[in-house]
Amino acid sequence: MTTHLGLDIGGTKTEAVVTDEHGAVISLHRVDSGRGPAGVVGAALLAAEHACAAAGTSAAFVDSVGVGIPGAISHGEVRHAINLDIEQFALADTLAGYWGKRPVVENDVNAAAVGAWVLAGDGPRSMAYLNLGTGLAAGIVIDGKLWRGARGAAGEIGHVSVDPAGPTGPDGLPGGLEAYAAGVGIAMASADGRTAAEILADPSSDNARNALFFGVASAIRILVLTLDVEEVVIGGGVTRLGPALVDGVSSQLGAWAADSAFLESVDLPARFRLLDTDAPVAAIGAAMMGAGRG
Amino acid sequence: MTTHLGLDIGGTKTEAVVTDEHGAVISLHRVDSGRGPAGVVGAALLAAEHACAAAGTSAAFVDSVGVGIPGAISHGEVRHAINLDIEQFALADTLAGYWGKRPVVENDVNAAAVGAWVLAGDGPRSMAYLNLGTGLAAGIVIDGKLWRGARGAAGEIGHVSVDPAGPTGPDGLPGGLEAYAAGVGIAMASADGRTAAEILADPSSDNARNALFFGVASAIRILVLTLDVEEVVIGGGVTRLGPALVDGVSSQLGAWAADSAFLESVDLPARFRLLDTDAPVAAIGAAMMGAGRG
Repeated sequence: MTTHLGLDIGGTKTEAVVTDEHGAVISLHRVDSGRGPAGVVGAALLAAEHACAAAGTSAAFVDSVGVGIPGAISHGEVRHAINLDIEQFALADTLAGYWGKRPVVENDVNAAAVGAWVLAGDGPRSMAYLNLGTGLAAGIVIDGKLWRGARGAAGEIGHVSVDPAGPTGPDGLPGGLEAYAAGVGIAMASADGRTAAEILADPSSDNARNALFFGVASAIRILVLTLDVEEVVIGGGVTRLGPALVDGVSSQLGAWAADSAFLESVDLPARFRLLDTDAPVAAIGAAMMGAGRG
Repeated sequence: MTTHLGLDIGGTKTEAVVTDEHGAVISLHRVDSGRGPAGVVGAALLAAEHACAAAGTSAAFVDSVGVGIPGAISHGEVRHAINLDIEQFALADTLAGYWGKRPVVENDVNAAAVGAWVLAGDGPRSMAYLNLGTGLAAGIVIDGKLWRGARGAAGEIGHVSVDPAGPTGPDGLPGGLEAYAAGVGIAMASADGRTAAEILADPSSDNARNALFFGVASAIRILVLTLDVEEVVIGGGVTRLGPALVDGVSSQLGAWAADSAFLESVDLPARFRLLDTDAPVAAIGAAMMGAGRG
């Protein structure tokens, strides 16, 4: 059996899995993420060591390694991973020095898109993975291949505006999807020092919830009308709202379809679903990208 | 030398070209389009006969045939080509009966996308062709292949809304790109019986022109942020505005970049251009799709 090590380095947790060649998880280990290059590498080594040990192997013996991490990635180098206090760092080279093999390094949303696609099994040949985390971005899989774009920037729909009179987002522009449906935008709009999680958990936060539903529904509409992907799979911290999120978004999509025969024909409510929030999709995707898939 | 016949059946004109294997035009012939299945076929046969004769060949002797036509296309059958008075028609089968060879039939915007990509030569490996005609839609070429979407509906961005308080478009919803930047939307917004061409040619139509610039700039922003295509190539009747359109759209894109470091980094003004309006892109693209490209 071949084994593949995959890591998901997030702002809070660093998660490592060992998978088989189909992406089935053999072992999983989570540790708190570190900060800065040394902290990030330390947490990655620790998580990898424990996951490998639980699978009866080591980083030196697995067949491949892949790593998902926020930021702009180019040739194994990470830039602008602000949540991790990394401005620029040669992550692949550094980890290769410890593991004796060079990992494939990929943006975490793209890694999660590949992971979601692998988990869907004999599912769709095209998919958009919409990540609602601190920021908002999508990973795009077409014919089973990740589409990164001409400059590695495909899926940056957080900066698409759906209302010139909408709230100003972290990018400085009004009405961007990130202003409605990402943690940073939700907290900015509230402006009372609470986190997005606190705001959304408050039953009196009707405005914030309705803005969230509008933003997510708009993101689905943009992804399906532009790309006609088979389905939009939604992950990230905001999905902890669960059925309330599905109901609110479906209601907005249904209202559009009621006014437009065209939108009704596209059947947007049937074309999105929430990812199981406990599934380590980005780590699985990273493992599969290390193995040459995606 | 191999020769390929390509047809572009539009609401006004039916255009036929004979090209070589690289898509270089050997001959071209235009006739007025007919209406209904019989009229459409008659015009196609006439245009093809003249273009072939001028190239010293005939439909029976060219190596392949491709046809671009508005509407939803499936297995050579055309549906909902409203401008041509066609509800449902087996176009490929019918033309095969006359030509002795079955044409590849493709949606005209998709055919034009392939044509624009062929004309770009050793150009971008990804491109969106944005058609501003009676309607608004995009054709998407990724890695040199047309991406039709899971259900053949990729590029239907005319129905993406960029303003919930915007003008109602032909799809019944407010703020869709088609309401700002397609002939049908421009005429609807004016509501004085003039055509879009008449409205845009009127120097006092500042509102219509500014709405057009906003709509086209929004379409470019959506296509580049979602797909990160190398470039957006714009064609269709509305592009007859020429430099005024480029200036107006660039000005809107520049205003966004001035307010947002992120948008500035994407450099949208450098990523669109108008197609030469006289180039028979859809016919060339149809010829190349008949030859198995795209």
